[in-house]
Amino acid sequence: MSLREIKITRNFIIHPEGSVLIEAGNTRVLCNVSVQEGVPPFIDETKEGWLTAEYGMLPRSTNTRMRREASTGKIGGRTAEIQRLIGRALRAIADRSLFPGYTVIVDCDVLQADGGTRTAAITGACVAMYDAFTAMLKEGLISKHPIGQLAAAVSVGIIDGEPVLDLDYRLDSQAEVDMNIVMTEDGRFIEVQGTAEGALFTKEQLAQMLQLAEDGIRVLIEAQRDALAD
Amino acid sequence: MSLREIKITRNFIIHPEGSVLIEAGNTRVLCNVSVQEGVPPFIDETKEGWLTAEYGMLPRSTNTRMRREASTGKIGGRTAEIQRLIGRALRAIADRSLFPGYTVIVDCDVLQADGGTRTAAITGACVAMYDAFTAMLKEGLISKHPIGQLAAAVSVGIIDGEPVLDLDYRLDSQAEVDMNIVMTEDGRFIEVQGTAEGALFTKEQLAQMLQLAEDGIRVLIEAQRDALAD
Amino acid sequence: MSLREIKITRNFIIHPEGSVLIEAGNTRVLCNVSVQEGVPPFIDETKEGWLTAEYGMLPRSTNTRMRREASTGKIGGRTAEIQRLIGRALRAIADRSLFPGYTVIVDCDVLQADGGTRTAAITGACVAMYDAFTAMLKEGLISKHPIGQLAAAVSVGIIDGEPVLDLDYRLDSQAEVDMNIVMTEDGRFIEVQGTAEGALFTKEQLAQMLQLAEDGIRVLIEAQRDALAD
Amino acid sequence: MSLREIKITRNFIIHPEGSVLIEAGNTRVLCNVSVQEGVPPFIDETKEGWLTAEYGMLPRSTNTRMRREASTGKIGGRTAEIQRLIGRALRAIADRSLFPGYTVIVDCDVLQADGGTRTAAITGACVAMYDAFTAMLKEGLISKHPIGQLAAAVSVGIIDGEPVLDLDYRLDSQAEVDMNIVMTEDGRFIEVQGTAEGALFTKEQLAQMLQLAEDGIRVLIEAQRDALAD
Amino acid sequence: MSLREIKITRNFIIHPEGSVLIEAGNTRVLCNVSVQEGVPPFIDETKEGWLTAEYGMLPRSTNTRMRREASTGKIGGRTAEIQRLIGRALRAIADRSLFPGYTVIVDCDVLQADGGTRTAAITGACVAMYDAFTAMLKEGLISKHPIGQLAAAVSVGIIDGEPVLDLDYRLDSQAEVDMNIVMTEDGRFIEVQGTAEGALFTKEQLAQMLQLAEDGIRVLIEAQRDALAD
Amino acid sequence: MSLREIKITRNFIIHPEGSVLIEAGNTRVLCNVSVQEGVPPFIDETKEGWLTAEYGMLPRSTNTRMRREASTGKIGGRTAEIQRLIGRALRAIADRSLFPGYTVIVDCDVLQADGGTRTAAITGACVAMYDAFTAMLKEGLISKHPIGQLAAAVSVGIIDGEPVLDLDYRLDSQAEVDMNIVMTEDGRFIEVQGTAEGALFTKEQLAQMLQLAEDGIRVLIEAQRDALAD
Repeated sequence: MSLREIKITRNFIIHPEGSVLIEAGNTRVLCNVSVQEGVPPFIDETKEGWLTAEYGMLPRSTNTRMRREASTGKIGGRTAEIQRLIGRALRAIADRSLFPGYTVIVDCDVLQADGGTRTAAITGACVAMYDAFTAMLKEGLISKHPIGQLAAAVSVGIIDGEPVLDLDYRLDSQAEVDMNIVMTEDGRFIEVQGTAEGALFTKEQLAQMLQLAEDGIRVLIEAQRDALAD
Repeated sequence: MSLREIKITRNFIIHPEGSVLIEAGNTRVLCNVSVQEGVPPFIDETKEGWLTAEYGMLPRSTNTRMRREASTGKIGGRTAEIQRLIGRALRAIADRSLFPGYTVIVDCDVLQADGGTRTAAITGACVAMYDAFTAMLKEGLISKHPIGQLAAAVSVGIIDGEPVLDLDYRLDSQAEVDMNIVMTEDGRFIEVQGTAEGALFTKEQLAQMLQLAEDGIRVLIEAQRDALAD
Repeated sequence: MSLREIKITRNFIIHPEGSVLIEAGNTRVLCNVSVQEGVPPFIDETKEGWLTAEYGMLPRSTNTRMRREASTGKIGGRTAEIQRLIGRALRAIADRSLFPGYTVIVDCDVLQADGGTRTAAITGACVAMYDAFTAMLKEGLISKHPIGQLAAAVSVGIIDGEPVLDLDYRLDSQAEVDMNIVMTEDGRFIEVQGTAEGALFTKEQLAQMLQLAEDGIRVLIEAQRDALAD
Repeated sequence: MSLREIKITRNFIIHPEGSVLIEAGNTRVLCNVSVQEGVPPFIDETKEGWLTAEYGMLPRSTNTRMRREASTGKIGGRTAEIQRLIGRALRAIADRSLFPGYTVIVDCDVLQADGGTRTAAITGACVAMYDAFTAMLKEGLISKHPIGQLAAAVSVGIIDGEPVLDLDYRLDSQAEVDMNIVMTEDGRFIEVQGTAEGALFTKEQLAQMLQLAEDGIRVLIEAQRDALAD
Repeated sequence: MSLREIKITRNFIIHPEGSVLIEAGNTRVLCNVSVQEGVPPFIDETKEGWLTAEYGMLPRSTNTRMRREASTGKIGGRTAEIQRLIGRALRAIADRSLFPGYTVIVDCDVLQADGGTRTAAITGACVAMYDAFTAMLKEGLISKHPIGQLAAAVSVGIIDGEPVLDLDYRLDSQAEVDMNIVMTEDGRFIEVQGTAEGALFTKEQLAQMLQLAEDGIRVLIEAQRDALAD
Repeated sequence: MSLREIKITRNFIIHPEGSVLIEAGNTRVLCNVSVQEGVPPFIDETKEGWLTAEYGMLPRSTNTRMRREASTGKIGGRTAEIQRLIGRALRAIADRSLFPGYTVIVDCDVLQADGGTRTAAITGACVAMYDAFTAMLKEGLISKHPIGQLAAAVSVGIIDGEPVLDLDYRLDSQAEVDMNIVMTEDGRFIEVQGTAEGALFTKEQLAQMLQLAEDGIRVLIEAQRDALAD
């Protein structure tokens, strides 16, 4: 197992209710959490809060400069897919009945990309969200912390038939299968997303990848706990 | 196991190179395949072809009318996610080196929705794509059929802690976990996408869902073979 | 006179308040009518209802695949023109004072195009709208059926100097003049839209085309009545 | 017959190849014609030229300020319909084989609106286009003037059951039928567009409106000839 | 000093509350002012009014036809910059506490461009806005005229090292420095915007340009007063 | 004079040709410079290069979260204005004849905002651009460094009638006049942009602000030189 070095810096930016810079190897994602009064119309504000995520990449976070999505005038398909994933993952661990009437917006912005930005975003955003809820608790906006257990995410893949953990950009471009796993402290799944990129995969390979991911996520959750303990 | 009744009608529309209406219970998706000369710039036209998919829902395919995406002026996040999934799934079974210089566009349009539109789309599009390649072969545009084995997709979920196959809209809205599986004739995975909606899921539950999906997909592939044999 | 074979299938789709598949030769248009509570701000909801139409073509409804309007991000000029025409035509026969506070949305989606999609859409939508109002009457939402008389539409043209009825795509591309007529059961006009495409037209030719259209529309209204009698 | 006072001012703006300000009562439309090298891809540049029109209204050309279409980010349905009408009408009298390789763009911008802006636009643009072709002829870009005969447009309607010519805004809002006619010098039709707004119309009423329009257009073409003779 | 000939025509268009055509040499800008009830949410309607400006160019106002911004679907950067400048300049002289609850929209549309359209727009809009407030006063909508002193704008530049006043298009394209000044009757600044285009500029050159602008603006304000005195 | 503490970190991100994080008090802007082959069509690639800038703010860089411009689907007016300013300022000091055929894109992204983001962006981008050209020189892409002298920018304003240097967000919201100055090492102006926000300003006040800005810019250029010397 070789997880890239992980570094979690809390309070990176001063304005947000929670702000974490997460670094996984050369991948660096800034996760900012904003708390706003009010909920969307489809939510009953007396019973629930809402939580949503947005994801972006700085134009030169990648090796070759990408066009700014604000210039193209629309959110690309990959971006839409990733921000929906982040939102779903975080909603799975936040008890929305504990912050009724509030909307929590999680912005994950990639400063530097080297593979695994979506999983780093989830792992970092979990800590930033934790901090934001702690702040709400201190201010008396809520009466109980809505996060029961932490969650983290990691990518696994298959290269030359062998399962590999935590793919950086170079490995990712060689992988025959690409998989992202989101899991909680107690080892239950939030998301399992595996895709054949160049070769189909068997049940045995799936099992191997899931095990590898579980091992990696255990280490990541340890890093989250250490960061929160500071 | 209770898979909904499946019905595959080939040549539903006269213009496309392949045209299939697939019905899974009350879900009805029209899958039209168009073959065009030329490939996008990132493809070497002497070596490969390209295959891409688009997905849409008629405004009143659903119980409550949805705004037309052409009116909102943009593709929504859910639509983007689904059409990326369909494209990836079909590319996994089509040998792109066998149709160099051509772009194959798969349009999946939902006429009537009752849960499982994305998996029905994949299952139906696979047959329409097969027909389109057969037509290319007959016209001498390609020399070998690019599809080695068929693939089909199905949804599985967990309701009240129990795994359930092929969720219609009513079941889907009760499901605690929602999973879509795409698999080939020989039982290998193309996509595994599982999401906790209301409850986390364990390794055991994941294994049960995968087994149920495999059983369902075997039946669906049988239906594809029957349709192609007509 | 040679009108193409006309086929009207009611209740084609289960969700809408009215749903008709109309086939005129190879042209197939799905007309779905949705009833919603509420009216736009420019309407006094205590006195009137509102009725509006939208029109779309599936990308491969035509011989050559068209780009999806949801992808281009805007409604094209031709689409805008057609949906305005359909809306005006239907408003002319629906007494809006009889469904105050409701908005009726008519979606006409072309599954297969072979000329005359806009006139087929009007003819089919008239039946679907009739059904939707009948449903409202049964549910007690309105107290009187808002449609006094039916209306239908047909195209006429001039080819080699001679007037021709109900142009399919091949004829339409040869026509020197293209005209669409919408008329009621009692032979009065709702719309008269004639356009010189390759040759100007005289008063005499205009009179001939109007007569031909009137004959065709009589047959179409008969088909509507037959369908509604089933 | 009561046509509003018509005033045609040529060379209103210095830059365009043809520039006409047309005033019909209080309606004022600026018609500017631009000649550009090159044609769209669907035209064979060795055989034909292209001609297209755009239409706009200044935000406060109307009694109540309208939102600027550049701000809303899209061309509205009415605008699309009108600019397509203007383009078709002008293409009907310009022999496109006589200006191969050139695109003629006609911009009709409403400075002040008081009903009949689309018909005034066509009548004015015809003169501006005539001037632009004359300029091309002088510069030797073309060898023969592409306009054989002039064309003009006028609106007619029915108010209280009586046909009325050239409706200003006040009359237009009372009209039960609204009709726009485009006709050439020799009395042949280019466009006939009649719409029931509040009451259906009979063949006899249609005939009366067409006669009234013909009388009005004769006067308008006289005014065009006078302007061109200056 | 050589200011281009200035001509200010009031009441150019009948609908707006204030309407001015300003001509500065060959530059012609139509400035229409609309008064609407209501203010944006960020304004306290009991204490203040709002004033905003929009700017547009007719497609053929320039020597080469520009694409219509309504067609491109967005406001360009230059347009955005200019309309923000016009709005700021006019807000600086209008006491917003004197028209609480009203929004004043200033539309500046360039009919013909020959350099200096933004400064002509400000100079003309000031008069149109003055007229609109006078109309409000007469109708009893406000109790005191909100404009204390007039303001006008002019461009200055440096060509071959020498300061030059009021640049037309030809001069503007030669200028090494381009500067726009907005100033009030009593000689105080509203805006100073100087930009090095091809050569940097010194403090001395800045002082010379400011002096030249002041001289020009004095003449322009004289023209505004004359127009208002008619 | 009280300039906020300035900190310039080079090579903040690994991918770009030049990457600088500039901090001015609590304002933090990441300036990344990308070098691409090719120039826009309006540039002669054998004679010149092109240089352009884009500007963005992370949604929670501000005290209250702003909507992401990629979500709104368009670049706002303020953003457009700022990125045009940055581009002009940098083009004024880069000799474009020295990097023919290349496009240099400068991305300035605000991580944390506390007033003066546009001036910090210019000051930081100047260093990042310097580094990018140095890299091009080392790789032999160009033969001479295109930057003759450095430039920096600062804001000045008037609060309670007194000139103040380098306004943070709190001061900026109190300022009666807001001015941004861009100046080179030898004390010549690139941009002078002063705007009355709540009070007009006199020539004397303008002179005082210019002097204060000059003093501040001298210190900033010192900081740029120190950073480049590391």
